[in-house]
Amino acid sequence: MRTHQLVLHWIESRLSEGQLTVGGRLPAERTLAEQLRVSRTSVREAIRILEAMGVVRAGVGSGPEAGTVVISDPTAALGSALRLHVATQHLPVADIVETRVLLESWAVAKASPDAPELEEAATLLDGMARQDLGVSDFLALDVRFHLALADAAGNAVVSAMMGSLRESIQGYAAQLTANLPDWEATASRLRVEHHEILAAVRNDDGARAAKLVAAHIEGYYKEAGLGSGHTEQGRP
Amino acid sequence: MRTHQLVLHWIESRLSEGQLTVGGRLPAERTLAEQLRVSRTSVREAIRILEAMGVVRAGVGSGPEAGTVVISDPTAALGSALRLHVATQHLPVADIVETRVLLESWAVAKASPDAPELEEAATLLDGMARQDLGVSDFLALDVRFHLALADAAGNAVVSAMMGSLRESIQGYAAQLTANLPDWEATASRLRVEHHEILAAVRNDDGARAAKLVAAHIEGYYKEAGLGSGHTEQGRP
Repeated sequence: MRTHQLVLHWIESRLSEGQLTVGGRLPAERTLAEQLRVSRTSVREAIRILEAMGVVRAGVGSGPEAGTVVISDPTAALGSALRLHVATQHLPVADIVETRVLLESWAVAKASPDAPELEEAATLLDGMARQDLGVSDFLALDVRFHLALADAAGNAVVSAMMGSLRESIQGYAAQLTANLPDWEATASRLRVEHHEILAAVRNDDGARAAKLVAAHIEGYYKEAGLGSGHTEQGRP
Repeated sequence: MRTHQLVLHWIESRLSEGQLTVGGRLPAERTLAEQLRVSRTSVREAIRILEAMGVVRAGVGSGPEAGTVVISDPTAALGSALRLHVATQHLPVADIVETRVLLESWAVAKASPDAPELEEAATLLDGMARQDLGVSDFLALDVRFHLALADAAGNAVVSAMMGSLRESIQGYAAQLTANLPDWEATASRLRVEHHEILAAVRNDDGARAAKLVAAHIEGYYKEAGLGSGHTEQGRP
């Protein structure tokens, strides 16, 4: 094991044993280095990795707010990892879209009709009803709407995976809209479909909600030129 | 953006533009530092993060084999991220099990009856038939059997996620077996169930395969004391 991995391993053990918890602080860099008998460089490398994994937020400045704080942002971690691997072209965009369909259909089928996240979803649809909304603002609300639906299923792992899938193809999704023949027509259709999906969840008709959400996602990518059976990277 | 993030960003751009590909090498640390006008420490930090994300393998030694090579191991990256967040107790084990059921049921329902991965799955079952197999050897083959089934669906993202879920609870799964009242009885049951699942996939009966695999996974965790509706961390 290399020295920065020793540090990672030590921190992971403290987390699993509950001696370090979310909101808590890591010991100072120098203290950790002395305690584990490694260089401060190794400690800093380990902390950078934990930051990239969404497990800590590095400290800045001094005083009571200084120090490296334990956080929990699995979505960011999974999102960066997926995005990097989409970049190496070893994770095809079509597989990401298919996985999204799988997770979202499951989530809307499982969501409880009175889950509080559905209120948020409804508010987001109100925001998307505005006709003067720009494309990127519309898409930002659209992402939040779909994440709210996924959250309504109450599974933290599925929520984190959904968020990471969206993040990993965010740049790609923005390019796709440029392929659409008529943005206004698409936006009108998406608005109608969103309301239908939300209504099905609220009517406790999980099977219908699942079917609608799958058709909604597949229809969008198909219209933008990425067929669901397509396995190429689909670069611009 | 901090300096090590500049380096990460630069490498990610080169990957998406196809100027860096899997099997290729990063420029030497010093070259990168000079080109991007950052310190060698920042370059090294970025490379450590990419290593942790399964995007590069750090170089050792000198000669033609030296240098940092681009690889693609999304499973490792997602697995470490999930494992760390299970450790912070923000991803409940019950949610991981539920996600596993979701992904595996989908995979066996989608797998083609003549997928080459099913040959490998059958060979693994032969290995698990040996009566003198120790618990940990049995479990190692068991993990590979389930991953082979997932791979047969042909979706790289689902395969990576499945692998990462297994990796994230590997330590936990090993502890669970200690809770089982009678390992030999459980092992016999698992053997029978594995054969039934594989037979259903080969008979192109996706619905039956999905049902069997869900019951198989849920039954195991239930027997080991983690109910499917359970949301606590379930620590030993």
